[in-house]
Amino acid sequence: MSKSPEEVHPKKAFGWAARDTSGVLSPFEFSRRKTGEEDVAFKVIYCGICHSDIHSSKNEWGISMYPLLPGHEIIGEVTEVGSKVTKFKVGDKVGVGCLVGSCHACDNCKNDLESYCPKLIFAYNGIYHDGTVTYGGYSNFMVSNEHFVLRIPEGLPLDAAAPLLCAGITVFSPLKFYGLAEPSTSVGVVGLGGVGHLAVKFAKAFGAKVTVISTTPAKEKEAIEHLGADAFIVSNNPQQMRAAMGTMDGIIDTVSAVHPLLPLIGLLKFQGKLILVGAPDKPLELPVLPLIFGRKIVAASCIGGIKETQEMLDFAAKRNITADIEVVSMDYVNTALERLAKGDVRYRFVIDVANTLKEE
Amino acid sequence: MSKSPEEVHPKKAFGWAARDTSGVLSPFEFSRRKTGEEDVAFKVIYCGICHSDIHSSKNEWGISMYPLLPGHEIIGEVTEVGSKVTKFKVGDKVGVGCLVGSCHACDNCKNDLESYCPKLIFAYNGIYHDGTVTYGGYSNFMVSNEHFVLRIPEGLPLDAAAPLLCAGITVFSPLKFYGLAEPSTSVGVVGLGGVGHLAVKFAKAFGAKVTVISTTPAKEKEAIEHLGADAFIVSNNPQQMRAAMGTMDGIIDTVSAVHPLLPLIGLLKFQGKLILVGAPDKPLELPVLPLIFGRKIVAASCIGGIKETQEMLDFAAKRNITADIEVVSMDYVNTALERLAKGDVRYRFVIDVANTLKEE
Repeated sequence: MSKSPEEVHPKKAFGWAARDTSGVLSPFEFSRRKTGEEDVAFKVIYCGICHSDIHSSKNEWGISMYPLLPGHEIIGEVTEVGSKVTKFKVGDKVGVGCLVGSCHACDNCKNDLESYCPKLIFAYNGIYHDGTVTYGGYSNFMVSNEHFVLRIPEGLPLDAAAPLLCAGITVFSPLKFYGLAEPSTSVGVVGLGGVGHLAVKFAKAFGAKVTVISTTPAKEKEAIEHLGADAFIVSNNPQQMRAAMGTMDGIIDTVSAVHPLLPLIGLLKFQGKLILVGAPDKPLELPVLPLIFGRKIVAASCIGGIKETQEMLDFAAKRNITADIEVVSMDYVNTALERLAKGDVRYRFVIDVANTLKEE
Repeated sequence: MSKSPEEVHPKKAFGWAARDTSGVLSPFEFSRRKTGEEDVAFKVIYCGICHSDIHSSKNEWGISMYPLLPGHEIIGEVTEVGSKVTKFKVGDKVGVGCLVGSCHACDNCKNDLESYCPKLIFAYNGIYHDGTVTYGGYSNFMVSNEHFVLRIPEGLPLDAAAPLLCAGITVFSPLKFYGLAEPSTSVGVVGLGGVGHLAVKFAKAFGAKVTVISTTPAKEKEAIEHLGADAFIVSNNPQQMRAAMGTMDGIIDTVSAVHPLLPLIGLLKFQGKLILVGAPDKPLELPVLPLIFGRKIVAASCIGGIKETQEMLDFAAKRNITADIEVVSMDYVNTALERLAKGDVRYRFVIDVANTLKEE
């Protein structure tokens, strides 16, 4: 049997991959390309576990290619740089998020919006320029074009910084783009998971008044005392929801399950913005009249470009913003994915790849 | 039996009203308040028939109060002004649209956005400051606070100007607010009815490239040759829709029936805006992923404030923009409503109130 393109790269690599829609990960030998002129090779130290890793491993979006090796919140240390690399040197602490390639020619690429390039290449389950399938950060090392490599600023703990590379930029970018990153704005955050808890932290750092909207009353103490939210509303408490009607400039909605939008639209002020960053696999019900009478908008946002991601990391370092994490070993990954699917994590799992990924 | 508050006003008035959910209109005697200090009284000359008049007459939104006397595209001639009225004198040609009152104290009122005042009072089926139900323009005369009275500029034909007061401002305002009233923008218009045909005319006048999106291939010739649209797409022709994907800065969606948004979102460029001005009575299905990957928004808009409505009329006069109308007599109104419900009108019915409303 002839070898697949992914097996004939010169560099032997190792990680954990899903082989089928069970989504169960297991050890996987593969290969990576040699470090090209513009490439940075780095040893993976930590990798965050994103909810997308579950969807992808189980092919819930219908676009998975197996073997599928997840991970797009990747932190590491540079081991080799190509001859034309200017931004990094061996020993640098670096990160790679959701993106490892784009066309560099379209308007969005030219405007530092690679995440909206029609030819963007995801860190895993993508097709790279050489035609091979991309494999993510649940692996011993990465090779990435330096354009898509982020510098991890001094002072950011490497483990708790990993989730910033996807969850962090997912909320940082829309807060900025939709004008909510301003003091005295009133920002709602729906869903207090890996993405939501970072939305609270960034919005607070921007000076906003932050209200967490959650189905789980038990999260109130945590949201206010630990994460610093100003207020907490239980979304199925009609009295609390009514009292907060018309009070918010914008809402970051991180929920990726199907859920009603009408109560959230009601919380918005005139011209308020409901910003969806979760990706339900079915359409949501959109009531039109409440939008019309309040000139409100429903918007969405997808991670951010590389330049903005670096800005986010630098801002996070300056303001001591990191994810709240539970560090797990590589062989715990399947349990972690199961627990994540049930929302049983405060707030993000990060795999200690460097110390626990053992080649068998 | 004691008289209702609406019957004890000093000025006897006459019009056609619906009495029940059949929505059938018939002659109706009522009364209007005396002309107050800030009021303008005017003889109704023409009144447009808006689709809302059907919804309201039949109580399809569940908020109708009977007797219900419709009409909010009202053109007339001033017959009396109150002592404090400064903007109008007897003989002036004037108009009243959807609004006859607001609080004048909220932020929206202060910013000339009375149409978004939480206490706005509609021209009919509203409760006025004095506690009486408002009656619309299917009647022999109106009394209105001068703030809500528009000046009809010289040169605008009175009959064809009537629909500007609702249909016109409904599209003028969002084109301006959402940045689509600029040369070289690409604007889609969904639904070529009373509102849609004015969207084409205004967008063209602003210099946009206008594409009509319609389910009815037969409308192509009319849209392009008569209304001046640049292109026409049949919405259920996959080939035409595919060819136009990603080409539009914004879409004015005038359809008030439940309809799919996914194909329309596909027509938008990156950061494009789908603007809903029709009001379906059921929620629409909103697919989230296409919004996320294109940072697109779904927005909405409700008529416009009084200042902007005057700007719209002045612009229309300057650029010769009027509605295409079919003038009908008062006793044809029930037939007109039936035909309108079937979309059988090019493009707006206007009642010749002055010449055909006969007191029995």
